[in-house]
Amino acid sequence: MFDQIRIILVNTSHPGNIGAAARAMKTMGLSRLFLVKPKTFPDPKAAEMSSHAEDILEHAVVATSLEEALQGCALAVGTSARPRSIALQTFNPRTCAEYIKQTISQMPHTEIALVFGREQTGLTNEELMLCQYQVHIPTNPDYNSLNLASAVQVLAYELRMALLAHTLPNIPTVETEEKATIGEVEQFYEHLETVLADLGFLRKENPTLMPKLRRLFHRIHLEKSEVNILRGILTSVQKTKFPEYQN
Amino acid sequence: MFDQIRIILVNTSHPGNIGAAARAMKTMGLSRLFLVKPKTFPDPKAAEMSSHAEDILEHAVVATSLEEALQGCALAVGTSARPRSIALQTFNPRTCAEYIKQTISQMPHTEIALVFGREQTGLTNEELMLCQYQVHIPTNPDYNSLNLASAVQVLAYELRMALLAHTLPNIPTVETEEKATIGEVEQFYEHLETVLADLGFLRKENPTLMPKLRRLFHRIHLEKSEVNILRGILTSVQKTKFPEYQN
Repeated sequence: MFDQIRIILVNTSHPGNIGAAARAMKTMGLSRLFLVKPKTFPDPKAAEMSSHAEDILEHAVVATSLEEALQGCALAVGTSARPRSIALQTFNPRTCAEYIKQTISQMPHTEIALVFGREQTGLTNEELMLCQYQVHIPTNPDYNSLNLASAVQVLAYELRMALLAHTLPNIPTVETEEKATIGEVEQFYEHLETVLADLGFLRKENPTLMPKLRRLFHRIHLEKSEVNILRGILTSVQKTKFPEYQN
Repeated sequence: MFDQIRIILVNTSHPGNIGAAARAMKTMGLSRLFLVKPKTFPDPKAAEMSSHAEDILEHAVVATSLEEALQGCALAVGTSARPRSIALQTFNPRTCAEYIKQTISQMPHTEIALVFGREQTGLTNEELMLCQYQVHIPTNPDYNSLNLASAVQVLAYELRMALLAHTLPNIPTVETEEKATIGEVEQFYEHLETVLADLGFLRKENPTLMPKLRRLFHRIHLEKSEVNILRGILTSVQKTKFPEYQN
């Protein structure tokens, strides 16, 4: 899937940005970089900024025009930081990634291009018209100075999120500790209630105290070892305050 | 909303990364930067890399410890590039942003911190334990070398997407042109059918041709002016091929 996606950078001025874009791509599992008329490439600054993503730079395809870089692609989406007079349908990064994912699943041998323009001026209208869609990253309207590699990062991230959606649970918890059973938690509540009554803190006039405490502890989803710690504390309170518990 | 979010960078080595992080924040509407023991700050390299986000650097709060930077926060989420022995509940960037959004809507005066560690080694376990949750950006397992400012960019982007969700239509189309009415499109289909029949291309043996063409044009959601162009083409075909249409 990731191999079907080309990142095309058009007429990039700073080789450092090419390197940083390669790094951004690689962190998200993309590898196919196309460069249309880069000002300076290859360049030591590109390699330095790529931070061990040199393999992507080494395999980068340098093209003399966007048409050439798009050859073989069934879908091209151009990035645009500003509204254009041409009314291409505009995605946000998430809908763009979803659309690309759908395209890939329907056409498993399709190649798809995401096209990024110049650092200062972006894509020309002519270049954008070679794309079927445009994508706009919803930046702060008062400051839309998104770095080229940052734009690549955001879109590559959204692609990864879309393509790996099935592997990302909503809130992946690190389940290294065994959770307490409901019975164990209930024993803890009983223990707590006993101690609070013994302390004189739990009184008949306050029937909502235990429900409030239960609600609090319910939210934590206690682990076995945590129940043991809490009950240890309760026992130590009992032993200290009420020596009759000592045995 | 955006003002309730602190970005805390712990012990950053390279001032350029602080500047690039400030730029990433500002593109997404965040402004409150906290720096815990930065190696070098302020520094001309930070200002240079901030690319006109110097206001964020000027207002940055420098703290001597993470505890100090977290003062006044009701929620802290630490970033982590690798699994940890401590089992903090782990968000991905999207669920993290959703959770922060919920927290903000429930507690409109709450301050919330997103904590980023050192470039090479991230946060210590002790620092992570000062957070209630951790967030992991799902990078390529073979190359998780996400630049610090890129990590800030991805999370700031997700926060913006979550906080502005109501303002982002699924596929915001640039509706500059008036769409054709269904009747106008139907007249076009009739016109097309007539011409194709006259051309001998539409034959009784091929009853699926018109449905296929309708399906194709349906997807485009034609504009009034486009229908006019298409019908103009059909008329010119009629005039050229069938001079009897000339009048």
